[in-house]
Amino acid sequence: MGRHHDTVSFLSDYGWDDEFVGVVHSVIRSVAPHATVVDLAHGIAPHDVRAGSLALVRSVQYLAPGVVLAVVDPGVGTERRAVAVAAGENDEAVFVGPDNGLLAGAVAMVGGATRAVELTNDKLHLPSPGPTFAGRDVFAPVAAHLCNGVDLDELGESIDPITLRPGVLPLTRTEDDRLQAEILWIDRFGNAQLNVDPDDIEAFGDRVSLRWRGDQVRTARRARTYGDLKAGEVGLVVDSYGLVSVVLDRRSAAEELKLRPGDAVSLAAPA
Amino acid sequence: MGRHHDTVSFLSDYGWDDEFVGVVHSVIRSVAPHATVVDLAHGIAPHDVRAGSLALVRSVQYLAPGVVLAVVDPGVGTERRAVAVAAGENDEAVFVGPDNGLLAGAVAMVGGATRAVELTNDKLHLPSPGPTFAGRDVFAPVAAHLCNGVDLDELGESIDPITLRPGVLPLTRTEDDRLQAEILWIDRFGNAQLNVDPDDIEAFGDRVSLRWRGDQVRTARRARTYGDLKAGEVGLVVDSYGLVSVVLDRRSAAEELKLRPGDAVSLAAPA
Amino acid sequence: MGRHHDTVSFLSDYGWDDEFVGVVHSVIRSVAPHATVVDLAHGIAPHDVRAGSLALVRSVQYLAPGVVLAVVDPGVGTERRAVAVAAGENDEAVFVGPDNGLLAGAVAMVGGATRAVELTNDKLHLPSPGPTFAGRDVFAPVAAHLCNGVDLDELGESIDPITLRPGVLPLTRTEDDRLQAEILWIDRFGNAQLNVDPDDIEAFGDRVSLRWRGDQVRTARRARTYGDLKAGEVGLVVDSYGLVSVVLDRRSAAEELKLRPGDAVSLAAPA
Repeated sequence: MGRHHDTVSFLSDYGWDDEFVGVVHSVIRSVAPHATVVDLAHGIAPHDVRAGSLALVRSVQYLAPGVVLAVVDPGVGTERRAVAVAAGENDEAVFVGPDNGLLAGAVAMVGGATRAVELTNDKLHLPSPGPTFAGRDVFAPVAAHLCNGVDLDELGESIDPITLRPGVLPLTRTEDDRLQAEILWIDRFGNAQLNVDPDDIEAFGDRVSLRWRGDQVRTARRARTYGDLKAGEVGLVVDSYGLVSVVLDRRSAAEELKLRPGDAVSLAAPA
Repeated sequence: MGRHHDTVSFLSDYGWDDEFVGVVHSVIRSVAPHATVVDLAHGIAPHDVRAGSLALVRSVQYLAPGVVLAVVDPGVGTERRAVAVAAGENDEAVFVGPDNGLLAGAVAMVGGATRAVELTNDKLHLPSPGPTFAGRDVFAPVAAHLCNGVDLDELGESIDPITLRPGVLPLTRTEDDRLQAEILWIDRFGNAQLNVDPDDIEAFGDRVSLRWRGDQVRTARRARTYGDLKAGEVGLVVDSYGLVSVVLDRRSAAEELKLRPGDAVSLAAPA
Repeated sequence: MGRHHDTVSFLSDYGWDDEFVGVVHSVIRSVAPHATVVDLAHGIAPHDVRAGSLALVRSVQYLAPGVVLAVVDPGVGTERRAVAVAAGENDEAVFVGPDNGLLAGAVAMVGGATRAVELTNDKLHLPSPGPTFAGRDVFAPVAAHLCNGVDLDELGESIDPITLRPGVLPLTRTEDDRLQAEILWIDRFGNAQLNVDPDDIEAFGDRVSLRWRGDQVRTARRARTYGDLKAGEVGLVVDSYGLVSVVLDRRSAAEELKLRPGDAVSLAAPA
């Protein structure tokens, strides 16, 4: 027997309008009634593996010990592998989901995979008339069995963690004294998180020139928090993940500056 | 005393923006602190009894044993009855909600009603200044009392299950070699579920002619899963409920083909 | 040690698309695994302290005993105080959130504050690279420690409850025989709740003249519930909170009459 778990942290692109999330909860509760399911996020854009992966990376250090169930799975029913990946000391976290890069960043954040299996033992899955809802038929029952102490090895064939599909983490580069960055995430408040460490822009000083969409230019001021900005002033704050975000005070920077996830943004000292 | 329950599976058209869902949780927790509420779905379109009923039918076989609380209730406060309906062996499931057809399909799926009551015992309801939030004042406390072991008979006057309002399940019919079908559901990913069994279209072969909105025509290919389709190719897959769905790979069939729930679609062998 | 709590009722303007709500759940579960988090509402418009405050007022009498965690916090990271406020007999409820008026109405509803502290003991907070996610780093761990029996006094410096920022509850006034009112809330179904007691309009009789946006005029009929109205007829019902709401049967009054939260509406006997 493996270690018992009490918590399943659950992220998906299922949205909140359909009953997908509720059915996954129901399957887990039917198999492992003692487990609590914590909904991490289900508003990931449909099929957006990158966005799901980044949300997991931002969250993973705050999760309760247990199973992490993540399903953003455009290749459902195809040859992509369904996997479970143990990480941390004594299997403190076990990640369950498709092997499409979704899990990789979060697994790395908690120390890397110690072992992994492909979920080939379909005796632990639900019977299904069609292959399109693996969250319900494969991943949820597997997560619940893990909570009940079923060992990773019973879930299917062992695979080498090195063969797991890596995630894609965009790196910055410097070109002509400009730091070429990318928008990782737009949150509900319209803050635009960049893949930029505060150290990367220390040399630029208190004011930083932003350029995006080729020709859009604006000077931003570095600030500690939203409320330190004047009305309409564009700010750069170190956000709660330690990354630099483009913000306005009580207004949506994304909306006013027309920023979107994945957009390129370059930063430099003002001319 | 009746059987105790640990789970309330809860579906409504309350949406997630207001505090309706949270207040129902709070009432249940105040009366029956040991019970867990599983949110099945709350994004049902306002007053859409048919959509709520179909979501329950799709989910019911996956629910944990216990109380099923369902509230899509355009007639709240009028003469429509509020009911509790026991189904399955030893009252394994008790459905609580308005008697407007919402519960009927799901009750039938688990074997039919064994007994039913109208919720006329208002000692088990909350006092209320107005009749418009029966979810909070009638259905939630009744669901919680059922979890505490209160028997169905204490909730109000026994009624003959035969008098419960039936659900409306649209049937297909054949006309001039075309199968006349209907869209039951559009999910978040834009897949359009039809009221069609795979057997119904077996004779049409691998390619099927679709016609909708009178004059829109497209040929679809039968496929096992989304990823088996070429870019832009319209597919028919057997979905995870065993019904035929109109799909695209990683794109929304509903958006691109302008399909909506309730729309008529006819299917035939290609000309 | 203080009293232990089992329930955290949680309201915010975090929305359901990002992982903010899920991370707060995770932090609470990591610190106080025995506690259940009830999501009261997270669809409050970004930074809308007034809307959050009103949702709390509508809900508070239905909450399970325990901690009430409320975060609508446009001034996060500035000089606004983070507070915990005990209310009711034997600290039956402890409110945790920013001191910006969000909590005041609900605290008053349950009998007023008995004691209060500013959350200055950062040993009970999470370390954070930036100040912008106080829900995760300050409020969630404090709520969890309260569940574990940590006393209010350990959370920081005691403050006089009289110094807590008051809420803003709009009052009606009478002008030229018209009752000048305000829309408190538009719910998902498009019902528009007014800050009007039924007694305030008793003298107007069965039909009431509504005026809004300066020149929009319509006669509404008082009714007991939605279903008592004819198609298209504007109604005034006493809603489930004991206040007067402008409604239509199975249609959105807000959409058809173009009503928004905060709009002024005047009521009078028909001319």
